[in-house]
Amino acid sequence: MINNQTVLITGGAGYIGSHACVELLQAGFKVVVVDNLSNSKLEALTRVQKITGKSLSFYQADIRDKPALTEIFAKESPSTVIHFAGLKAVGESCAQPQRYYDNNIYGTLVLTEVMNQANVKQLVFSSSATVYSESSSTPQYTEDFALGAINPYGRSKAMIEDILRDLSAADKINQAASPWKIALLRYFNPIGAHHSGLIGEDPNGIPNNLMPYVAQVAIGKLTQLSVFGDDYPTRDGTGIRDYIHVVDLVKGHVNAIAALNSEKFATGGCKAYNLGAGKGYSVLEIINAFEKVTGKTINYKISPRRPGDIAECFANPDLALKELDWKVEKTLDDMVADTWKWQTQNPRGYQ
Amino acid sequence: MINNQTVLITGGAGYIGSHACVELLQAGFKVVVVDNLSNSKLEALTRVQKITGKSLSFYQADIRDKPALTEIFAKESPSTVIHFAGLKAVGESCAQPQRYYDNNIYGTLVLTEVMNQANVKQLVFSSSATVYSESSSTPQYTEDFALGAINPYGRSKAMIEDILRDLSAADKINQAASPWKIALLRYFNPIGAHHSGLIGEDPNGIPNNLMPYVAQVAIGKLTQLSVFGDDYPTRDGTGIRDYIHVVDLVKGHVNAIAALNSEKFATGGCKAYNLGAGKGYSVLEIINAFEKVTGKTINYKISPRRPGDIAECFANPDLALKELDWKVEKTLDDMVADTWKWQTQNPRGYQ
Repeated sequence: MINNQTVLITGGAGYIGSHACVELLQAGFKVVVVDNLSNSKLEALTRVQKITGKSLSFYQADIRDKPALTEIFAKESPSTVIHFAGLKAVGESCAQPQRYYDNNIYGTLVLTEVMNQANVKQLVFSSSATVYSESSSTPQYTEDFALGAINPYGRSKAMIEDILRDLSAADKINQAASPWKIALLRYFNPIGAHHSGLIGEDPNGIPNNLMPYVAQVAIGKLTQLSVFGDDYPTRDGTGIRDYIHVVDLVKGHVNAIAALNSEKFATGGCKAYNLGAGKGYSVLEIINAFEKVTGKTINYKISPRRPGDIAECFANPDLALKELDWKVEKTLDDMVADTWKWQTQNPRGYQ
Repeated sequence: MINNQTVLITGGAGYIGSHACVELLQAGFKVVVVDNLSNSKLEALTRVQKITGKSLSFYQADIRDKPALTEIFAKESPSTVIHFAGLKAVGESCAQPQRYYDNNIYGTLVLTEVMNQANVKQLVFSSSATVYSESSSTPQYTEDFALGAINPYGRSKAMIEDILRDLSAADKINQAASPWKIALLRYFNPIGAHHSGLIGEDPNGIPNNLMPYVAQVAIGKLTQLSVFGDDYPTRDGTGIRDYIHVVDLVKGHVNAIAALNSEKFATGGCKAYNLGAGKGYSVLEIINAFEKVTGKTINYKISPRRPGDIAECFANPDLALKELDWKVEKTLDDMVADTWKWQTQNPRGYQ
């Protein structure tokens, strides 16, 4: 069954997208990547094919280009779409909200319209834990927690979730013969790289996220890491987040497709699932793990807290275990070792 | 000053838009209407010109048509935009969310992009009290109440508010030389018509809202009004809403433009204002007023409550009084008499 299924992956050349390509090809799917290469390199897909020994189809196209997307759907007849394409830097989203909403929201509206016209109604959406309101009384988020993103990036993800839920709800009103089947996967903090060291995160400019930043300090590309706040009410005073190995994360997508194909979604639906480890690590624990695995000393300094940061949050991943039969398998040491392998083998990323 | 100002009105041929044209022309503005006529008639603008004895410019264009919109901005050089264009039927939005989000959200994204490129950064947005969460502890909503729309129409309004707030917030980060000046006007329940009887609400098909429905029952076009629930904890058991005369409502827009032009917005900003009477009328009170003004008996029956309806809500309009120097002036009898005049003079609307 899987061998006849084509999965179309928007943003498939990006960090998470390229890792998803590997897992899907290895699971026997045909893979079609649509990517505008605005924040990714084609080399990543060459490496995907090297890792898997399998080929995939690639289209350089922007998902907002409706005629191009329509043609790709007609040619490739995918059964499922995984929608990664989108801008993702929080700080940049605050300075360029127009660009973020246009890419993320309008891009998704074009995609869903083309999918609907092609009668492809099965979708896995790359959402984020940033959709959760941080006013929760507990740091462990379950899927039914109040939503309330605090920046344009997070809001764009929350809006897309709303839109997709509404598309699915309309199926009942319209008694749709072929209803939407949608999994909203809320990522916690994806880090790490493929164990081969061939693909990994290749951020433009200075990394926004902790792990690539630490890796670039370790390799000497950056001089010092700032740890924002060591006076949080946590075990060592630094912020605690739920880090998840990118390979674990993308396996969640393969399982989500299986769920959408199964009886669980026989009558359609749109459902959110946390993809996280269910426990957090502090910034200092990440630094320590990095020093242990690499034998390098990480040069860091304690800086003031950043406004808007909270002390601690991590996933309750029970629903994904129950309904997607998924949980993380990699350890913090795996995340660090694989990041380091990628970084040392590719000190300048894909260049 | 006003005499040199051109106001571009998206959706200017619609119910509220056409009344806004009248007030703006009478206040001395030049008026440019952009409307795709998907839910409005050009005849409304002919009537506007008849009422005012002044002319306006009209472009039949969809705001999602970026080249067309860009050309209109280049030709007309508006100083301010009032953005009414959008789909507005709650029930329809539940069945056709893709269409609603595409029209309302994407339409606004194109509009703001074209405005930004034309350096027109002054905007009055047609929002709605539907953005408020109905879980409030008091039925009188102030602008800082929790938001939480419960249908795609309301969510599209809330999303647009979020997007516009983010555009404005980005000005500070980018130290914009010409910052956005945005008024989000949250309408309660606009009813009534221009006192001339020449323009009014001309809904396609069966009306969604109480007042045109009552009017069509009174004139014999519809046979019976359903009153949904008479067991609410209100003074007569029927639902209470804040009805606002459409002419009062559009005067709020003229005042909002004055505020955006004033010192209050000298450094930019995006601010929400309730436009409502600050008190509510029950369904039975509306029916009674209609019977009194028209001398007709309204045939109605009590039906079960509709899911999602709340007992009572009305505006706290203090902020609009304080900052826009605006409050309602018309009475319920005005609203009913003007609705009736429009209905009897135009039993088939603009046809």
